[in-house]
Amino acid sequence: MKVSRRAQVPPFAVMEVLAAANARRAAGESVLNLCAGEPSTGASEAVRRRAVDLLTAGDLGYTESMGAPALRQAVADHYGSWYGVDVTPAQVAITTGSSGGFMLAFLAAFDVGDRVALARPGYPAYKNILRSLGCEVVELDCGPDTRYQPTVSQLREAYYDGGLDGLVVASPANPTGTMIDAPGLAELAGWCEEFDVRLVSDEIYHGITYDDAAETAPTAARYLPGGAVVVNSFSKYWAMTGWRLGWLVLPDDLVGPVDALAGNVALCPPALAQHAGVAAFSDEGYAAARANVEQYAVSRRLVLDRLDELGWDRVAPADGAFYVYADISRSGLDSVTWCARLLAETGVALTPGTDFDGVAGHDWVRLSFAAAPETVSEAVDRIVAWQGTLPGAS
Amino acid sequence: MKVSRRAQVPPFAVMEVLAAANARRAAGESVLNLCAGEPSTGASEAVRRRAVDLLTAGDLGYTESMGAPALRQAVADHYGSWYGVDVTPAQVAITTGSSGGFMLAFLAAFDVGDRVALARPGYPAYKNILRSLGCEVVELDCGPDTRYQPTVSQLREAYYDGGLDGLVVASPANPTGTMIDAPGLAELAGWCEEFDVRLVSDEIYHGITYDDAAETAPTAARYLPGGAVVVNSFSKYWAMTGWRLGWLVLPDDLVGPVDALAGNVALCPPALAQHAGVAAFSDEGYAAARANVEQYAVSRRLVLDRLDELGWDRVAPADGAFYVYADISRSGLDSVTWCARLLAETGVALTPGTDFDGVAGHDWVRLSFAAAPETVSEAVDRIVAWQGTLPGAS
Repeated sequence: MKVSRRAQVPPFAVMEVLAAANARRAAGESVLNLCAGEPSTGASEAVRRRAVDLLTAGDLGYTESMGAPALRQAVADHYGSWYGVDVTPAQVAITTGSSGGFMLAFLAAFDVGDRVALARPGYPAYKNILRSLGCEVVELDCGPDTRYQPTVSQLREAYYDGGLDGLVVASPANPTGTMIDAPGLAELAGWCEEFDVRLVSDEIYHGITYDDAAETAPTAARYLPGGAVVVNSFSKYWAMTGWRLGWLVLPDDLVGPVDALAGNVALCPPALAQHAGVAAFSDEGYAAARANVEQYAVSRRLVLDRLDELGWDRVAPADGAFYVYADISRSGLDSVTWCARLLAETGVALTPGTDFDGVAGHDWVRLSFAAAPETVSEAVDRIVAWQGTLPGAS
Repeated sequence: MKVSRRAQVPPFAVMEVLAAANARRAAGESVLNLCAGEPSTGASEAVRRRAVDLLTAGDLGYTESMGAPALRQAVADHYGSWYGVDVTPAQVAITTGSSGGFMLAFLAAFDVGDRVALARPGYPAYKNILRSLGCEVVELDCGPDTRYQPTVSQLREAYYDGGLDGLVVASPANPTGTMIDAPGLAELAGWCEEFDVRLVSDEIYHGITYDDAAETAPTAARYLPGGAVVVNSFSKYWAMTGWRLGWLVLPDDLVGPVDALAGNVALCPPALAQHAGVAAFSDEGYAAARANVEQYAVSRRLVLDRLDELGWDRVAPADGAFYVYADISRSGLDSVTWCARLLAETGVALTPGTDFDGVAGHDWVRLSFAAAPETVSEAVDRIVAWQGTLPGAS
């Protein structure tokens, strides 16, 4: 029987890595998982406690499609306290993770045939969701000269090449960890406004930033114009991956459409996660998140301090998020082979760049340092030793 | 800025009713909510206990995109014990509610421009999701002569009228509660197989059946051919609405496509709900669900025994689910006005038929008897008394 053309989504290479890692672990061998984009800590005690209370005596029925009012209010307040920007609860849509947010935002903003630009390398779900919805994806080839972020000149070229309806940016980005600074975001946003291009800003790694750049991401939202959509989530900063909770900040013209779509497409986000998620914005919730970021900073330093030893001289600047994206082509191995052999020979799991970049990804790997510092340190030891065994090692 | 054409989803009339009901409740007045398609009981103790344990000492990170292996196994086992059919865990995709299941099934099976048939009246999300994905919806006008279910002759007509790629059926159906019996389902399924039309069977109300027909729904799955997709959920029988947990049983040709799409579209269903949901299939979990159905049976009888008093002589046969769908056109009022006035004047909230039927829905209302029997009984008292005050009352 017929299967849809839009279901022809390329499989993720990381799934092969995960399956091999699970098989290895099942066989009793050690695995150091640095391939998942997932904090190892889990939700804060504040959130878990609230959830337990709700399970004992709470209403876990459907909420409003746009989310429980108390959580919409808490998210709106978060924008005031973190960014100093006014966001009303009416502009906030609670979603089923950022995945649910992207689905709703893309459906509300783009029609079949619309052209949407995004950076390559980038998070693969953007383009896979867009294509499944019948949109045309315009990949912008982004390299080290622009910190792997799109430029206005690339947008202009795409625009004159066949029109442009949307732009998806991510800052900090996955897999590169690079950020768009405030003037850069203002420039992109201004161009989008002028050319009537809908800007979707993925801010899922906000709060996970380091060094001098620590303030950049949290202030970036100030520079977004009235027509932009912000996508965020409780998965990364608040370490609530499996809870499937995220949000959108919507421009006025998309509030009604997202509301109408949400009831049909998702009905409502998970109720327990929503009610408990309010506690993520408590002092205790923020403190737990900050403590996680301090751990990531330690792990990040562990990796960056050993880049010479690793022989990784082409590495995207890890401004934020918890990834190091590194060129391993000097090994003479394709990244898929490199990752498969690294896992088989040392038990360290990394993600091949092919998941993020269909053109140059064979030269790159992504290392996630969201794991505990001891794990990351041990993994780097093993990678260094293993690379020394490769024929290309000098 | 441009908003997508596909976001032009008609708003649900029930949302107006709910808003008015909430305002009434906030003002301290009594509201009897018979408009939500939602059990009032909530998840069983077995499921809640398991969830509390997981919150204390569990991994609530991402699961596999297709769902946690233990839950896929439990669902597969359920098909053996309930239906006597062999389903392998590999065929089961755990989804974020049935909403997430429909999204994945429709994306995997249908392309932009594909034509998909469904019954009118019917659950509005089917057609709204399909249209948002660029599919063409073919509404089949289904009346009392076919128990509000589609027929092969309607399918044939639609097929020769412009081709047909899919058919969505629901048994028991929302809002009518009617079921397709086993020979009827076999006939529809056989026709779909012959004409290469993908059948999607919504079985979310399975287990909630009454009287002689009690066995029909649970055995219906036996008559589905190899190419059909089954959609189900923990929301109704297991009363876990806000948990957002459902599943698909997939034909072999859709397993790979759904797997590839799921990671992009949803990442994974809520982890806590999945792990705790295994307990829904325990003896205690099934017993709690059966006890709920016994309550619905009492409430259903309360309504059906008073149809004469209510003056509702045109009512869909409530074989299953927890709805009575009734023609109120004798009142001389449009169903939207009827529901608004009933709520304002008595505090009883029902759903106007316009949400389910864009043509004849102005004559119909849906009463949900998922509420407690006392609530349903009191609501019927108020409706009877209120109808007596209408000018058209004889």
